[in-house]
Amino acid sequence: MYVGGARRRFAKVSSQGGPVRRPGKHAEEGHELSVSSGLAALSLDALSSVAYGPEAMILVLIMAGTGALRFTLPLTLVIVGLLALLVISYTQVIEAHPDGGGAYAVAKLNLGRVPALLAAASLVIDYVLTVAVSLAAGAASLGSVFPGLAHHLLIVSLIGLVLLTALNMFGIAESARFLMLPAAVFVVSIVAVIVVGVTHPHPVAVIGTSEQPFKPTTALGIVLILKAFAAGCSALTGVEAIANGVPAFRQPRIRTAQRTEVSLGALLGVLLLGLAILIHIHHVLPRGGVTILAQLTAGAFGTGWPFYVSNLAVTAVLALAANTSFGGLPVLLSLLARDHRLPHAFYLRAARPVYRIGIIALALGAMVLLVAVDGVTDRLIPLYAIGVFIGFTISQIGLVRHWRETRPPRWRTKAAINGTGAVMTAIAVVVFLGSKFLEGAWVVVIAVPLLMMLFSHTEHYYAEVARELKLGRTPPSPGKRESIVLVPTTTVNLLTEQAVSAAMSLGDTVIAVAVAGDEEEADMIRRAWSDWKCNVPIEVLVDPHRSLIRSVLRYVENINEEGVTITVLIPEIIPRKRRHEILHNQRGRLLESVLKSRTDVIVATLPFHLHD
Amino acid sequence: MYVGGARRRFAKVSSQGGPVRRPGKHAEEGHELSVSSGLAALSLDALSSVAYGPEAMILVLIMAGTGALRFTLPLTLVIVGLLALLVISYTQVIEAHPDGGGAYAVAKLNLGRVPALLAAASLVIDYVLTVAVSLAAGAASLGSVFPGLAHHLLIVSLIGLVLLTALNMFGIAESARFLMLPAAVFVVSIVAVIVVGVTHPHPVAVIGTSEQPFKPTTALGIVLILKAFAAGCSALTGVEAIANGVPAFRQPRIRTAQRTEVSLGALLGVLLLGLAILIHIHHVLPRGGVTILAQLTAGAFGTGWPFYVSNLAVTAVLALAANTSFGGLPVLLSLLARDHRLPHAFYLRAARPVYRIGIIALALGAMVLLVAVDGVTDRLIPLYAIGVFIGFTISQIGLVRHWRETRPPRWRTKAAINGTGAVMTAIAVVVFLGSKFLEGAWVVVIAVPLLMMLFSHTEHYYAEVARELKLGRTPPSPGKRESIVLVPTTTVNLLTEQAVSAAMSLGDTVIAVAVAGDEEEADMIRRAWSDWKCNVPIEVLVDPHRSLIRSVLRYVENINEEGVTITVLIPEIIPRKRRHEILHNQRGRLLESVLKSRTDVIVATLPFHLHD
Repeated sequence: MYVGGARRRFAKVSSQGGPVRRPGKHAEEGHELSVSSGLAALSLDALSSVAYGPEAMILVLIMAGTGALRFTLPLTLVIVGLLALLVISYTQVIEAHPDGGGAYAVAKLNLGRVPALLAAASLVIDYVLTVAVSLAAGAASLGSVFPGLAHHLLIVSLIGLVLLTALNMFGIAESARFLMLPAAVFVVSIVAVIVVGVTHPHPVAVIGTSEQPFKPTTALGIVLILKAFAAGCSALTGVEAIANGVPAFRQPRIRTAQRTEVSLGALLGVLLLGLAILIHIHHVLPRGGVTILAQLTAGAFGTGWPFYVSNLAVTAVLALAANTSFGGLPVLLSLLARDHRLPHAFYLRAARPVYRIGIIALALGAMVLLVAVDGVTDRLIPLYAIGVFIGFTISQIGLVRHWRETRPPRWRTKAAINGTGAVMTAIAVVVFLGSKFLEGAWVVVIAVPLLMMLFSHTEHYYAEVARELKLGRTPPSPGKRESIVLVPTTTVNLLTEQAVSAAMSLGDTVIAVAVAGDEEEADMIRRAWSDWKCNVPIEVLVDPHRSLIRSVLRYVENINEEGVTITVLIPEIIPRKRRHEILHNQRGRLLESVLKSRTDVIVATLPFHLHD
Repeated sequence: MYVGGARRRFAKVSSQGGPVRRPGKHAEEGHELSVSSGLAALSLDALSSVAYGPEAMILVLIMAGTGALRFTLPLTLVIVGLLALLVISYTQVIEAHPDGGGAYAVAKLNLGRVPALLAAASLVIDYVLTVAVSLAAGAASLGSVFPGLAHHLLIVSLIGLVLLTALNMFGIAESARFLMLPAAVFVVSIVAVIVVGVTHPHPVAVIGTSEQPFKPTTALGIVLILKAFAAGCSALTGVEAIANGVPAFRQPRIRTAQRTEVSLGALLGVLLLGLAILIHIHHVLPRGGVTILAQLTAGAFGTGWPFYVSNLAVTAVLALAANTSFGGLPVLLSLLARDHRLPHAFYLRAARPVYRIGIIALALGAMVLLVAVDGVTDRLIPLYAIGVFIGFTISQIGLVRHWRETRPPRWRTKAAINGTGAVMTAIAVVVFLGSKFLEGAWVVVIAVPLLMMLFSHTEHYYAEVARELKLGRTPPSPGKRESIVLVPTTTVNLLTEQAVSAAMSLGDTVIAVAVAGDEEEADMIRRAWSDWKCNVPIEVLVDPHRSLIRSVLRYVENINEEGVTITVLIPEIIPRKRRHEILHNQRGRLLESVLKSRTDVIVATLPFHLHD
């Protein structure tokens, strides 16, 4: 299916037939991300996961009884270790791929086409899921605070989606400004919870239902430990977002993105470890209706206003985690478009450095998902994190391959770091898929290959087009030919005069073409035309249906001269207000589109601007 | 607001700036209506109303006790008399207005602008209501036969709407073929009910709940009689449809339409009178859950298969009554468009003589209504029939005016006939509005003026445009000017060659325009261009954003020479499959639309047809 030669020729298209802008040359000061705005814009997905990652792990462990909770701290240490490996990997990815794209870019360079498509498809699915899950979680959280909203969670999610989409249309840096405050409150309050909790080791159980004894339902074994590990790993989703969105950062781009990545890693590691220590010290257990984070917060602050401020920040950050996708996915889609694996339109930018079509595609995807599951998070959770962990694995395998081939100093150590990370994330993927397959993960298993096929078909199509346009070969020299310009007309008015003047400028021969229902009407039109004395002949076509389109089409087909350039010049009224457009030009537009699709004539439109 | 002068000038526009086809010259044999297909296509609205008209009258009378039912026959005689007056009026309307439009055309000619707009707005509203009410009634009837559908009546209605819309897209005559059979079964079965019922006067009460004594809730007075009259008049809706849709008939158009109208009147009169006589003979009373028509049918046929066939035909005809609107409204909208009171697009026809945009507008309107009332007929009934009776009244007043002004032989008799009809239908309008105002008729009272304003605003807008285009005045003579053609390009390929060749044919001066991110890239482009040796200069614009649109726009604005025709020639890739269009040309389209809206340059597109 794939034509290697066509691919090489494509190297020229991207600076030619396709979109031409090179990322990294367009962004303006003020539209770019610094370390702190980068954290706000791209790390909420990762940071917000401390609100559910540790809890997910504990909920698995508790199945083997409260005694199993002693594994919380060691497992968290393993996960933070994995986080360190991932942060190292992604700082390397950022350096090697300053155009962004993360796992896709790494796989494309080091592993070939299929792994690259797999990474892209996985990331696309996970990004869309992130938006849907985050907004649904935020809406659910809001619904538990305002019970009046509880029956309208879908609408609340969709309103959030519209707002976030609109915000991102202005640019990722603009969205970051709005996210800075909730992000800061969130981080500060969790750090405060940890500090107060560790320094004032009081009992925690001040809120929630009374403690219930947990009966072990399963034995503590390697499978359960692995499941707990995988569940805890959900706290790592979002670590890849910065590497995917490098082009949005301020110069020196690579350094800024790397520092942001390291800051994110440090912050996330501290929070995860701190919470695990607190859980360990206070022997916190899952309690009906109250999250573990809320228990810890109440333990540290009591249930006064700091408790509520902290909870509100958690809610906000859960919802705003969706923004991470808006930073990452449009860039990834633009790279896919640059590689001819998606419509080139995804590479188009307006004056602001924003890939609007990618943003709209993301919003539509998330909307469809939210409506499909009726705004209920639980139905999306099993699909979540699989894509990101496939991406983690692929990018690290790609780096291993890279070190083996380039063999820089200490390449064995580097390869060992990435290899260890790859094995760990691959284990998480297998556990995710195995344990959640029937609950919904099968959707991902179906959707990923479908997306890969879509990318592949698009690529193949563009390759065929490039072949047909003979891209890469020098074409023959151009030459002047005789020019005939046709002006469809009805009677004589100011528009006719402008059209005929323009046609006389463009053509060696100008012919006005009109349609009449019968000979009598045809004579009338001819007389009116000759009264005008414009020195241009008129051809009145008699058609009982008075179909201008059919008549012009027939006339054009009858000219049939070789070596002649035929142009049809259509005057077009441009109203001052856009909404008045439905009052004009439908026949002209119809004629235009029929001529374009059925003939080889040049279709020219002459704008006539109305002033009222 | 209204400019009389502009209106006169408009007489020319309609054969020029606006749409040009004259109705009556376009239709093909086989796409036109005969008397019988005309009845099937345009009279189901009227004929189906015998299923509810008499019942509506009886339900009013019974409020004054069973004794009041003695007024059934006399009131029916009055209504049939009114029917005769209306049929006479509308045969006159058909003769005077072979282009269709009914009340609107009459009012426009004889009563002036405001009554014409009132008639148009009333008819538009009633046509849309007819579709919604008919489909909802048909769905309800189907739901009572198949209880499984009872909870999905809205969906059933909407499916019916889609089918009917699709059918009418092929033409009114095509739709008539499908309606012929149910219409014939309906008429034959009702006639059989009457004949059997009159010749075999057996008791009727064989189905339904047991007879209950009716307690009079109100006294029998003139108000009740008037209300019963108005309710019974609902059987006359649809009588106007043939006059509205004259252009759809076969030649000799006027005679065919008139004969159809008279046939409809005779048929409807016979059915109404026959049913009233049956009701009178058998002392039929309203019974829970069984319509009077069903009682009469059961009385004549028993409850065997003829009963079910007859009931099925009633159901079908109730639903298919919606087709009447598809025959009438698009023609009316096209006439409004011809008078510049609606967008000219409503006057566009494809190869078949069908006003598709009008059909789509009708379908959308009915869909909105159905969804708004959730498919429940009862909520629409109070709005119904008001519009038609306003139309009846206006058209008859118009005729009275016509006779008074033209004074043909026996004009006094003619004026008396129309005048009597006008008074009677006006009474019905007043009773409708008065008795149903709070139940929903206020919606009509609001909607009619809003529609009139819409028509009026559209008319005013087109008048302003005509003034700006100096329509009706001979423009100056056209003249040739110097022609500069710009070809936006990136690098050299087959498309570039074709575009430059075309540009050389069209222009005295040809300049290729490219955009580069920096000087280095600009040099690269210039080198590639000079290697080609095409004798056309290239202008490489340096723009850090690489915005082709902004650069071309700036370049065009800088040319700024008087007396020069500037053309921008954009090559456009035309894929073989429509769905591949999203893979091409977005930048070209964007450039095209920006140039059209912001500059006066000619935008020419050169199609390049792909073969794969």
